[in-house]
Amino acid sequence: MHIHIHEFPDNPFLQLTGAEFAAAAAKAGPIGAGHLVTFGTSIAEYEQAAPAIEALIATPGTVRRLDLARAPRLRLIQSTAAGVDALAPFDMIPDGVMLLNNRGVHADRAGEFAIMAMLMLAAHMPEFATDQRAHRWNRRSSGIIAGLRATIVGVGGLGGGAARRARQFDIRVTGIRNAAAAHPDCDRTLTVADLDKVLPETDFLLLACPLTEATRNLIDARRLALLPARAGVINIGRGELLVQAALIAALRNGTIAGAVLDVFTEEPVPAEDPIWDAPNLIMTPHISSDDPERYNEATLAMFFENLRALAEGRTPRTLVDLAKGY
Amino acid sequence: MHIHIHEFPDNPFLQLTGAEFAAAAAKAGPIGAGHLVTFGTSIAEYEQAAPAIEALIATPGTVRRLDLARAPRLRLIQSTAAGVDALAPFDMIPDGVMLLNNRGVHADRAGEFAIMAMLMLAAHMPEFATDQRAHRWNRRSSGIIAGLRATIVGVGGLGGGAARRARQFDIRVTGIRNAAAAHPDCDRTLTVADLDKVLPETDFLLLACPLTEATRNLIDARRLALLPARAGVINIGRGELLVQAALIAALRNGTIAGAVLDVFTEEPVPAEDPIWDAPNLIMTPHISSDDPERYNEATLAMFFENLRALAEGRTPRTLVDLAKGY
Repeated sequence: MHIHIHEFPDNPFLQLTGAEFAAAAAKAGPIGAGHLVTFGTSIAEYEQAAPAIEALIATPGTVRRLDLARAPRLRLIQSTAAGVDALAPFDMIPDGVMLLNNRGVHADRAGEFAIMAMLMLAAHMPEFATDQRAHRWNRRSSGIIAGLRATIVGVGGLGGGAARRARQFDIRVTGIRNAAAAHPDCDRTLTVADLDKVLPETDFLLLACPLTEATRNLIDARRLALLPARAGVINIGRGELLVQAALIAALRNGTIAGAVLDVFTEEPVPAEDPIWDAPNLIMTPHISSDDPERYNEATLAMFFENLRALAEGRTPRTLVDLAKGY
Repeated sequence: MHIHIHEFPDNPFLQLTGAEFAAAAAKAGPIGAGHLVTFGTSIAEYEQAAPAIEALIATPGTVRRLDLARAPRLRLIQSTAAGVDALAPFDMIPDGVMLLNNRGVHADRAGEFAIMAMLMLAAHMPEFATDQRAHRWNRRSSGIIAGLRATIVGVGGLGGGAARRARQFDIRVTGIRNAAAAHPDCDRTLTVADLDKVLPETDFLLLACPLTEATRNLIDARRLALLPARAGVINIGRGELLVQAALIAALRNGTIAGAVLDVFTEEPVPAEDPIWDAPNLIMTPHISSDDPERYNEATLAMFFENLRALAEGRTPRTLVDLAKGY
């Protein structure tokens, strides 16, 4: 199979090397053997390889910049990110081409970020950050987080990793998912239709679902107002899951106690964006799912696992349903 | 037994109520029955009760302000804090009076604070706090913390709680304790004599030991220089365990990557103290062991457990060895 790995120099993300690919291929056994692999960093390099490419490995943002019509032999695209919303509404994906993501790769790291954020919100760390800047000693007590309630919207890779860690701290976890199917790390699961009912008893609202037309602006001013004043909001999904201006207002008004945001409607966040100065807010620059030492290895292992499924006539585990968007 | 509970209004800490005492006494069974309990908030109230007092419940700082010679029937002092360094060198404790602390009460909360601090240091949260103030988007990646190494100085209540949580994240834990006795939540235990050897392979140095003449200024410029540049320092014990000026210099010079400090040489930290502006430092106002909903209940349960031990001729579990200071 001709596999093309593409990354533009203005958006370095994976920096996947030939040595990493070779190591992953060797580990994969027979399914990893006998491939022709090309690497590209420019449109010209892509167009040169395109006629022969059967599999493309790249971020969704990179795929969007490539003319897939030039690759008539293309069978599958392995996204090196879990969120493929940059490709929505997917009309540029040619018929018969499978889009695969790498969901699940981020679970452990996202779980650690999520429990850190919950511990920080419970301990009043956003307020202490403000106090420190003002050279102000102001004790605010808080107890252990056992018994507090987390509502996790989306219990796939990210949300599932978060639920697992939350349960280790005896947090009561409600998972919100489409089908309300049970989840081993949730105390209960509900559908989005029940979200408004569960918000008033939520201490931590964690957004960890894919961005689709159904989830865009899911958390708006009305839903923020349903949260208790002690609640904290955490977003590790996509910035557009919540209405950023409404969140800033909720923080300013004391509608909620604090927030930890790793994703934003515009990234990088412009220096003049008012969100930088919102009170009781901790911001991180889209790093909550990073795990540089393990990420490429895990993504490539998933790619070969998907190839093996196809070779054996099974559905690849991380095949994206283009109608749903994840 | 005449039990006197004292708290000065300028240092409210417990705000222990009669109702809380009655509930704890009822829960303790026979050993909780038949006591005369007085509450005092002034020297005059103390002096009025003093001739009859047999047991005194107060913070070490409060005890220091009371003339214990006025209480000839005093048999025991139940400290409502674990650290009793405010009473060192203990020459004001009359012969024959037992000093009991409440060590162990803080374990769960301190464990949560410690793992939060480790996760924050690993995730570059101190640097992100600086970036946020500057409206600066600067991605810094980090992976999961499994396999990183924590050196925990003192594995009593605080350090033991921290070790337990750290192991849940597969951190490799070295406990530093006087006798180097094994600890169920440490991968290994060593003595202070081995500290210099273990510092160069430490990712997180957590100070959680009592302040005594042996541990004062334990972490100085020389020992900070033994840590790798990626290391973070966490102090939940007492400010004087580390030389604060040396820590500020180590942060400024990049000798270490960051620090999370909950205790300081002077508390409240004065507004003009240079530490407020040290880079890559997260400060909290001595709250790492707080657990207001459970603290008084747990402390009183320990007091009655100590009374029961005495009634049965056993050594109370939290008796302070005045020669050691903890």
